[in-house]
Amino acid sequence: MLVPMDLTRIIVNETTDQYVIYLKEADGERTLPILIGVFEATSINRRLLDDPFPRPMTHELLRRTIDELGGIAQDVVITDLQDHTYYAVIRIKMDEALIEVDSRPSDAIALAVQYQPVLPIFVEDTVLDAAL
Amino acid sequence: MLVPMDLTRIIVNETTDQYVIYLKEADGERTLPILIGVFEATSINRRLLDDPFPRPMTHELLRRTIDELGGIAQDVVITDLQDHTYYAVIRIKMDEALIEVDSRPSDAIALAVQYQPVLPIFVEDTVLDAAL
Repeated sequence: MLVPMDLTRIIVNETTDQYVIYLKEADGERTLPILIGVFEATSINRRLLDDPFPRPMTHELLRRTIDELGGIAQDVVITDLQDHTYYAVIRIKMDEALIEVDSRPSDAIALAVQYQPVLPIFVEDTVLDAAL
Repeated sequence: MLVPMDLTRIIVNETTDQYVIYLKEADGERTLPILIGVFEATSINRRLLDDPFPRPMTHELLRRTIDELGGIAQDVVITDLQDHTYYAVIRIKMDEALIEVDSRPSDAIALAVQYQPVLPIFVEDTVLDAAL
């Protein structure tokens, strides 16, 4: 079952230069912290602060590419947790098909926040349980 | 006129943490240095060293997305130089159309090296002249 999540916080660990994004269950209290890199964190943060660069950064380029090829990004789903690594897919409607592109969660979420409104973010229930 | 270029060098300026990629005319001696960020430089360098990450990094995700939507990336073109900023497009065949996606040169080249063989890289003649 897919659980809808909200992106609630981005936290930086300044001693390790690592970032954590927190997803929180939209209709509940469970949270999912995901470790991400500085690049993806910066991309997400600038987007949330509405602080655009003059030229398209990489995740904006990804959004534009999907749009210009005629795809309609639908949502992103964190599908699995294996060996401490989260797996995600970006789901894109293309003609009649629903295409799933394998992605790291950080890229998927950085893409999600490129859209207004932000693309829905889902987590598989089993992943949420396993992460507790 | 489009001039075919080869990616010849990536050089890091360790005091500023800035990277420069050098494109050299395939059939001549003119070169084009382009300042890029650490993220794009790392992406290009790891790809050239054939040192893959276990999970798709952002430019690999972009390549996969184009492929899975049915696009065929054809080449990248550095089209313009304005106010010390280079402009580029990624050209993608989609059905019968040739779609041009606006891109920073660094993202375009980072995408180009995702393919084997590397996508052709072109520079507009006027840009090459202006950069000298």
